[in-house]
Amino acid sequence: MALVNEQFLKLPGSYLFADIARKVAAYREAHPGRDIIRLGIGDVTLPLPQVSIEAMHRAVDEMADSRTFHGYGPEQGYGFLIEAIIRGDYEPRGISLKPGEVFVSDGAKSDTGNIGDILSRDNVVAVTDPVYPVYVDSNVMGGRAGELGGDGRWSGLCYLPCTADNAFVPALPDRKVDVVYLCYPNNPTGTTLTRGQLKQWVDYALANDVLIMFDSAYEAFISEDDVPHSIYEIEGARRCAIEFRSFSKTAGFTGVRCGYTVVPEEVTARLADGTRAALNPLWNRRQCTKFNGASYITQRGAEAIYTPEGRRQVREHIDYYMANARAMREGLKAAGIEAWGGVNAPYVWLKTPAGVGSWQFFEQMLDRAGVVSTPGAGFGPSGEGYIRLSAFGKQEDCREAMARLRRWLG
Amino acid sequence: MALVNEQFLKLPGSYLFADIARKVAAYREAHPGRDIIRLGIGDVTLPLPQVSIEAMHRAVDEMADSRTFHGYGPEQGYGFLIEAIIRGDYEPRGISLKPGEVFVSDGAKSDTGNIGDILSRDNVVAVTDPVYPVYVDSNVMGGRAGELGGDGRWSGLCYLPCTADNAFVPALPDRKVDVVYLCYPNNPTGTTLTRGQLKQWVDYALANDVLIMFDSAYEAFISEDDVPHSIYEIEGARRCAIEFRSFSKTAGFTGVRCGYTVVPEEVTARLADGTRAALNPLWNRRQCTKFNGASYITQRGAEAIYTPEGRRQVREHIDYYMANARAMREGLKAAGIEAWGGVNAPYVWLKTPAGVGSWQFFEQMLDRAGVVSTPGAGFGPSGEGYIRLSAFGKQEDCREAMARLRRWLG
Repeated sequence: MALVNEQFLKLPGSYLFADIARKVAAYREAHPGRDIIRLGIGDVTLPLPQVSIEAMHRAVDEMADSRTFHGYGPEQGYGFLIEAIIRGDYEPRGISLKPGEVFVSDGAKSDTGNIGDILSRDNVVAVTDPVYPVYVDSNVMGGRAGELGGDGRWSGLCYLPCTADNAFVPALPDRKVDVVYLCYPNNPTGTTLTRGQLKQWVDYALANDVLIMFDSAYEAFISEDDVPHSIYEIEGARRCAIEFRSFSKTAGFTGVRCGYTVVPEEVTARLADGTRAALNPLWNRRQCTKFNGASYITQRGAEAIYTPEGRRQVREHIDYYMANARAMREGLKAAGIEAWGGVNAPYVWLKTPAGVGSWQFFEQMLDRAGVVSTPGAGFGPSGEGYIRLSAFGKQEDCREAMARLRRWLG
Repeated sequence: MALVNEQFLKLPGSYLFADIARKVAAYREAHPGRDIIRLGIGDVTLPLPQVSIEAMHRAVDEMADSRTFHGYGPEQGYGFLIEAIIRGDYEPRGISLKPGEVFVSDGAKSDTGNIGDILSRDNVVAVTDPVYPVYVDSNVMGGRAGELGGDGRWSGLCYLPCTADNAFVPALPDRKVDVVYLCYPNNPTGTTLTRGQLKQWVDYALANDVLIMFDSAYEAFISEDDVPHSIYEIEGARRCAIEFRSFSKTAGFTGVRCGYTVVPEEVTARLADGTRAALNPLWNRRQCTKFNGASYITQRGAEAIYTPEGRRQVREHIDYYMANARAMREGLKAAGIEAWGGVNAPYVWLKTPAGVGSWQFFEQMLDRAGVVSTPGAGFGPSGEGYIRLSAFGKQEDCREAMARLRRWLG
């Protein structure tokens, strides 16, 4: 008789954004004429950069002719894209990577979800709180989270609260942990770590033999000099960190699916007998066994953003979204609401009025202003009392949403 | 200190096809002028069907305009493709599926590799032998395979030999197992199960509470009436089987990446306390957490093969490859070699001459005939003494390869 992985049964049945979609749908049905602006989910609204469109058309045409057809590609991604990534994203920051250290995939969600495959169940995992739900849920599935308590915390995870009280800078764990997930610029708070703050984490990881899972999916939105784009800007990180990147937000690839993961040759973890194993060949074996490469067409689309014209087009998109973020920060201030983020990240994180919970404020904002947000509590217990707004909407929608918030609260 | 999943360290370092590629590369370097024909890896050579090319061009154009842009899609796949699959692949065979039972993905390799996520480590897994390596390797990673013995068998797996002695029809397990992987039409042997033979498996699974993982990636190549295309043609299979399908070989999508998995609502597995859980919501949760949907462009390309013109184009491709298979069967016969498969599958499985091992015959065939094959032993211990040839090559190459084999052996 087949036995299920019972860890799955501990998970709440649905995903945060599915809950929100259901609530919004119910509201729309009850208020059919209402004009609703969606600043909830972090999905882009601008079309793909024209360079990617053109590259994908060419790639589709290649697939129509047996002389240029591409069948199975390398599970790790095509050399043309890996080279473009290394030269475009890392060399300009003084970081050298070998092609075998970069693994192209169908997205950072897959990679951050699957990376646990190569780790033992017997690891203590730390997460910042609030946090991108995939890190928590995938570790629940992997049997590392223990039990869900009434306070919304999993007994086996170490939570690192990030709130206004500590300026959203997580303290180092006060107990022994083995793996830490860090996402900077942060989803959902939109806040960052400075180079010095990230160095503390790398030094801590090296001193305590901790593995850092560094998610820098939002690095393209960084505008301030002292915010590192890659953890490998910090000395020693090649020995203790895996980095995840995505084309989703940078280049609008949420529907096209492409990301990559860097596993330096020096990153190792322990065996039970105290010896060490390099993680790069393990991740390679995982990808070769359970993945068959990203679409050739997608990879050609991703490569195109590294051309000079591609960079210019991506920059325009990012500037557009960051103008939204600026308008939102200013609008919230004018409405008397305290907010963070939106300077180096496409998310603005705001404090709900005293005594109003995340879900309550979410519903008020939907009802009074017709604006869909994401309740901070959905990202973890320390997100209670906060709301996330996404800057990925259309400019006119963002401005109109702020005008409505001012009218409602100002 | 982070701990690795030590199961990974038990796996041989590289994948079968990587070994072969290395051997062929070494041979080419030693024999630079030699004309080599590749009938090893099962990758297609015809370009994509024109309907898919046109659909993908349209989809790329949609991504260029914010009014028709597609961002995040459903993790389970778009409704348009799921409906086309149900109406095109199942309804004509009298099988009703609900949209929520079909999960579109980036390929059957990902799904057959990841399905173990929802199962406990404490399952005894049976595999036919020889077998597609992903089933074995992913269960090694999941901790279900035990130790690799000197005979090439994993101590924790139950092997079901399929050789000429039993006409490649696996006997039911002679000990208690919980999960069985069946791939029919079979990779690598190209053989099939009749409706009656598959019914025995379904009846056995229902009687013994066994979960069947049914991989029907090659169903489009079936030419004989008594060979089932889907396990759900067999009564009761909805209660005990998960089915995997692929667009890779059917429609040449090896480089575009699309497949799907059917998890009927009735399929359940046990908890330790003896109660049962449905697997459909577990797989849904897995995909929602660790996957973000297949590329929109890819899904439009896949949808197109279900149009009347698409079906005609796919049929032409399959006929082309199956004409290769027929030529190969006839050529091998003329060369005095016993062979199976190639009637309902794009693989021909041949017996090496008495006393010649798989790898030895692979090397002889490369050296004497300039033909790349896949050694049967690479698919498992019972593959020793056999060789797989793929019918996915160009017609002229297949014919020339057979002429060379006749000259060498005939």
